[in-house]
Amino acid sequence: MNYKILFLILDGIGDHGNRELFYGKTPLEAAKKPNIDKLCRNSECGLVYPVDIGVVPGSDTGHLALLGYDPYKYYRGRGIFEALGLGINLEPGDIAFRVNFATVSEDGTILDRRAQRNDFGIENILSDFKGIVENVEEEYNVEIIIKKGVEHRGVLVIRGLDSEKVKEIDKHKENEKVSKVEPLEEGAKKTAEVLNTLLENFYKFANNHEINKERKNLGLLPVNYMLIRGSSKFIPVPEKELFYEKYNLKGIFIAGAPMYLGVAKYVGLDTYKPPGATGTVNTSLISKAEAAIKKRDEYDIVFTHIKATDSLSHDRKPKEKKNFIERVDEDFFSRVKEEFDIIVVTGDHSTSSIWGMHIPDPVPLMIYSPINRKDSVKNFAERKCHKGILGHIKGTSIIKIILSKIGKAEWFGT
Amino acid sequence: MNYKILFLILDGIGDHGNRELFYGKTPLEAAKKPNIDKLCRNSECGLVYPVDIGVVPGSDTGHLALLGYDPYKYYRGRGIFEALGLGINLEPGDIAFRVNFATVSEDGTILDRRAQRNDFGIENILSDFKGIVENVEEEYNVEIIIKKGVEHRGVLVIRGLDSEKVKEIDKHKENEKVSKVEPLEEGAKKTAEVLNTLLENFYKFANNHEINKERKNLGLLPVNYMLIRGSSKFIPVPEKELFYEKYNLKGIFIAGAPMYLGVAKYVGLDTYKPPGATGTVNTSLISKAEAAIKKRDEYDIVFTHIKATDSLSHDRKPKEKKNFIERVDEDFFSRVKEEFDIIVVTGDHSTSSIWGMHIPDPVPLMIYSPINRKDSVKNFAERKCHKGILGHIKGTSIIKIILSKIGKAEWFGT
Repeated sequence: MNYKILFLILDGIGDHGNRELFYGKTPLEAAKKPNIDKLCRNSECGLVYPVDIGVVPGSDTGHLALLGYDPYKYYRGRGIFEALGLGINLEPGDIAFRVNFATVSEDGTILDRRAQRNDFGIENILSDFKGIVENVEEEYNVEIIIKKGVEHRGVLVIRGLDSEKVKEIDKHKENEKVSKVEPLEEGAKKTAEVLNTLLENFYKFANNHEINKERKNLGLLPVNYMLIRGSSKFIPVPEKELFYEKYNLKGIFIAGAPMYLGVAKYVGLDTYKPPGATGTVNTSLISKAEAAIKKRDEYDIVFTHIKATDSLSHDRKPKEKKNFIERVDEDFFSRVKEEFDIIVVTGDHSTSSIWGMHIPDPVPLMIYSPINRKDSVKNFAERKCHKGILGHIKGTSIIKIILSKIGKAEWFGT
Repeated sequence: MNYKILFLILDGIGDHGNRELFYGKTPLEAAKKPNIDKLCRNSECGLVYPVDIGVVPGSDTGHLALLGYDPYKYYRGRGIFEALGLGINLEPGDIAFRVNFATVSEDGTILDRRAQRNDFGIENILSDFKGIVENVEEEYNVEIIIKKGVEHRGVLVIRGLDSEKVKEIDKHKENEKVSKVEPLEEGAKKTAEVLNTLLENFYKFANNHEINKERKNLGLLPVNYMLIRGSSKFIPVPEKELFYEKYNLKGIFIAGAPMYLGVAKYVGLDTYKPPGATGTVNTSLISKAEAAIKKRDEYDIVFTHIKATDSLSHDRKPKEKKNFIERVDEDFFSRVKEEFDIIVVTGDHSTSSIWGMHIPDPVPLMIYSPINRKDSVKNFAERKCHKGILGHIKGTSIIKIILSKIGKAEWFGT
């Protein structure tokens, strides 16, 4: 049989119990989600430590694990995922950083790490900055790619350097002086030099760019700095370890935000960003459901990522998180539930909507399949799934269990 | 106190839930087994991944794990277990293969991988073939042992070669041309040469042997080929890691089929094949129970293997599996239940009686002991044991837990 698999990732779905709002329940436990729960009754359930017990997963490491790649082996920093997600064709050895286009004062103080999240004029500045970039490239015999992403975000890729080990200058704090890039090892001296030259030139150039006069007229802070972080070197996953080779499944990853698409590309999955997928609470869940169903015919496994459960947790909005989960059930899950043979629902990590941050607490997991040992769990939720037959597992085990449901699990012995 | 331990291995005992026959229950869940369940109520229970989560165990790797030997460290292919099980005294470096005595046509097409499972005349052919074997031994300066096992099965051992790394010629398919043995590494060239010479000579000799005229008169296909697989090299378990040295328990393994006895011998256990133990559904369970009780006086731990639960699963007979489990309870378990201080019941892997193949789903486990933390599990079954106090464990952990029940567990620290 040619099984069709849906793997739904609800970002940051697990949470803390909330006494004030939900009598101690988590948003997921409090949400009404009849469609998910109906399937849950015929599923095998458990709790997942995406990376490991007691370890807070990042979105990147959490996703690597869910895709079946041990993050301790395959993770090399975030920059490359953002770069891949923005469609940059990385070459082995490329060094990539995330960029925040920011506002820095004349005396070098960081006024706004995100330039008010307003990207007016950034493209123009980058376009006009090309000549200077070429000079830097020539001076240091490197190639430089700067690409704008969503809002104030972007990536910086440098080709032709040895080491990515530099001290990051974005400290996630404002009202501090911006610091010079410092090498963390001998081989990174040139990297620091190139970066400092580039960033200083960018400041001088952007600060005097006429776009920033326009921004001022619009009541906006200037965009005049590139704060870099997430340093990483692109070492491709060996061909024999790419997703299809490793798991013998043709897979696609559907998401709105670049980073998730980048992780998927890194492991060799195809990717698709459906229309209306914004990665925010206003995302079109219907469009995502339709995309998942459409891609099913072409692929064995369709990963679908939904971001807002995490964003609402970071914003400390448990009630909105609960409501959004109910929307996922109604707008997304009701449409896909009968369209796949195997349906997996879990998250890349828990995010506390009380603390507004990722937490290492395990994430609920349900695996629906036609032939299984369905357990007594009736609701997809933290304190229900822990009674499931799968027990407590690691993120990288999920894909192995999926393979076992379609008769494709790894053998050892005869 | 001198505890007496029974370790019962029900081969392939775990299964999928079966909606058609048992309202979604597995054969083990559906079976009535009052004797086992009575003891289960005073046991500690759990689920076992014999090799690892998501990995399908073979019978060989599964058994190694249950005996407390990490298969990733100790497994070196199946041939040596079959050879040891047939009583061949292997020497370090010996290369061993499983053999199927088969029927091949004049143009080299495999007509029947098992020569109709009928062993009429095989011993005669092997006996008369000895002269040619001696020639091959002399030509290549090796020693060759060919021994018939049950039905169409046998083993081939070659002493004096370097490498066992050859491409196996038994592809588990019929109506294909039989292929030459090919070396997989430089050092295996001679191995391939010896094997090809031997197999070609066997074909010429056996095909013209008068026994095959008799087989023809009996309406049987000729026996004229040795299909080899399960290549392995005998590297003995270091003396200090043999079962008694490692666990300080004198142990014996009771089984019908050679492979299981071979694994037991490999780790240094004594073995015993009781009369009437056939490894089939017609096996004498009473004889096995009596053997277990008899051996108890001489040994600390008596492993007893029951095969038919697995065979019936491979044959896709869930109902017969359920019935056989009920017979195990009545004929075997009722007799042994009061004869041992510690009683362990589990399996070497799960086998789906729906799919007819091994599956990686965990296997139920119960450990009865006079002093313990008995849990609330009342039935020895997949979806009962998962609620037990032992949780989800690996196969190699069982023997450690047994040691903990008799005050002999490994210490670390003071």
